[in-house]
Amino acid sequence: VTTAGATLVDGVPAEAINVMDRGLHYGDGVFRTLRLEAGLPVWWGDHYRKLRADCLVLEIDPPVEQDLLGDLERLASPGGNGIAKIMVTRGVGGRGYAVRAGMASSRIVSLHAAANYPADEPEGGATARLCTLRLGYQPRLAGVKHLNRLENVLARMEWSDPAIAEGLLLDVADRVVEGVMSNLFMQRDGRLITPDLMRCGVAGVARERLMRAAARHGVEVEVRDVALEELSRADALYLTNSLIGVWRIARVQGLTWQPKSDTYPLQNWLDEEAEA
Amino acid sequence: VTTAGATLVDGVPAEAINVMDRGLHYGDGVFRTLRLEAGLPVWWGDHYRKLRADCLVLEIDPPVEQDLLGDLERLASPGGNGIAKIMVTRGVGGRGYAVRAGMASSRIVSLHAAANYPADEPEGGATARLCTLRLGYQPRLAGVKHLNRLENVLARMEWSDPAIAEGLLLDVADRVVEGVMSNLFMQRDGRLITPDLMRCGVAGVARERLMRAAARHGVEVEVRDVALEELSRADALYLTNSLIGVWRIARVQGLTWQPKSDTYPLQNWLDEEAEA
Repeated sequence: VTTAGATLVDGVPAEAINVMDRGLHYGDGVFRTLRLEAGLPVWWGDHYRKLRADCLVLEIDPPVEQDLLGDLERLASPGGNGIAKIMVTRGVGGRGYAVRAGMASSRIVSLHAAANYPADEPEGGATARLCTLRLGYQPRLAGVKHLNRLENVLARMEWSDPAIAEGLLLDVADRVVEGVMSNLFMQRDGRLITPDLMRCGVAGVARERLMRAAARHGVEVEVRDVALEELSRADALYLTNSLIGVWRIARVQGLTWQPKSDTYPLQNWLDEEAEA
Repeated sequence: VTTAGATLVDGVPAEAINVMDRGLHYGDGVFRTLRLEAGLPVWWGDHYRKLRADCLVLEIDPPVEQDLLGDLERLASPGGNGIAKIMVTRGVGGRGYAVRAGMASSRIVSLHAAANYPADEPEGGATARLCTLRLGYQPRLAGVKHLNRLENVLARMEWSDPAIAEGLLLDVADRVVEGVMSNLFMQRDGRLITPDLMRCGVAGVARERLMRAAARHGVEVEVRDVALEELSRADALYLTNSLIGVWRIARVQGLTWQPKSDTYPLQNWLDEEAEA
């Protein structure tokens, strides 16, 4: 068992960060949430590549991989399971939006108890709802897991029923984009379809891994706009993220999907890949 | 002179905030930046009302006015001038977007040296540029001065020339919305026009005060969409915020505006109102 609540800021045990950090002032940073199993970060190669890529989009100095691995090793007890969250901000800056040249980014690594989701490995599939909030378009930030997450917070505030495992987010054109904390896949006529994230949404590591896995299994994945009406015609719907893996959706408000014999075993696909 | 750099977190002197504050994790909060003159907050009534209104949009517990005034009084030296920044976040929470019931918000009040803008009280008027970044639409957050400010950060990164005082932000339909750190007013044929902020942008306190002042002076203010092409037909352009007051724009890339005898004395209008 890992020690929940422990945090390292730039490698030093800390319960607080500098009040002038731009992560607080502007949400000027990116983050990752990942599983630790037997004390080791799961899907680490993918997580580090994505963290680095997201930093580069914002022109934030990416942390050195060995520093992050060292932080995770210090926080996790050997053999323990849990969740690690990594935040990387542009660093400590003065007042005002302008970025000083050569700023050193801040790295904040914290350990948390394993998640206890209402629909964790739901036997009959997860119950989801449609959120009222519509995602706005910002192509400069789309796909990036940055710290400007008020849309997710407002959407998550729409329900408190613990039986509802996730909310589906639409954009202003009523296209289905993702879940509040997950990505979405649709299975139809043997193909997998996942929404295009060029205007909004977060491109998760589980989504990326599932796309690679589908290619290995010879299953076509279409990345394209998905209209809300298409959900009802799907043979199966799945939610993915690095913590939950894959949840099959059983119902979204009035619609239901039964497990079928030809439903792809996406959870197995996610797990089968050797550490990349 | 005030002591720059001093900060109170929930009324207690601190240089750091809890690493689990949702302001850091999600930009889940709002802020204000205001002038202190002779140790007292300028336009306080407007600032507190707007802070409270912004908290309510996000369903964040608003701070008590007397607590904020107490913080400002403790930080400011009597008779000193400076800048105060107030951040209010939803508070310290666990991992995950869901908001626990009854969370206590965090209040962070910091003192800073008076701003030194490149074009402070620019004699011949300010030089502005058009930013490449286009503001996305999110009506649920439009107008609110929240902590999700990556658009402003990215836009401000577009230039480093100290002679450029401000960048103008357009939306995806090439409408002019605001400046990176300011609101925009256009004077034309005796009327004032300021962009509608229902889709994006921040509705500043200086803008609100200027609208009230114009009404007192019998000058009509239109709040409406402003197409980029309209700038060239303006008799005068102004930028406003609580720190700079009013700057007249002298040039935006190829366009120039000369001071005219019938240009409204907006700075005087802003200052003449008794504390509201």
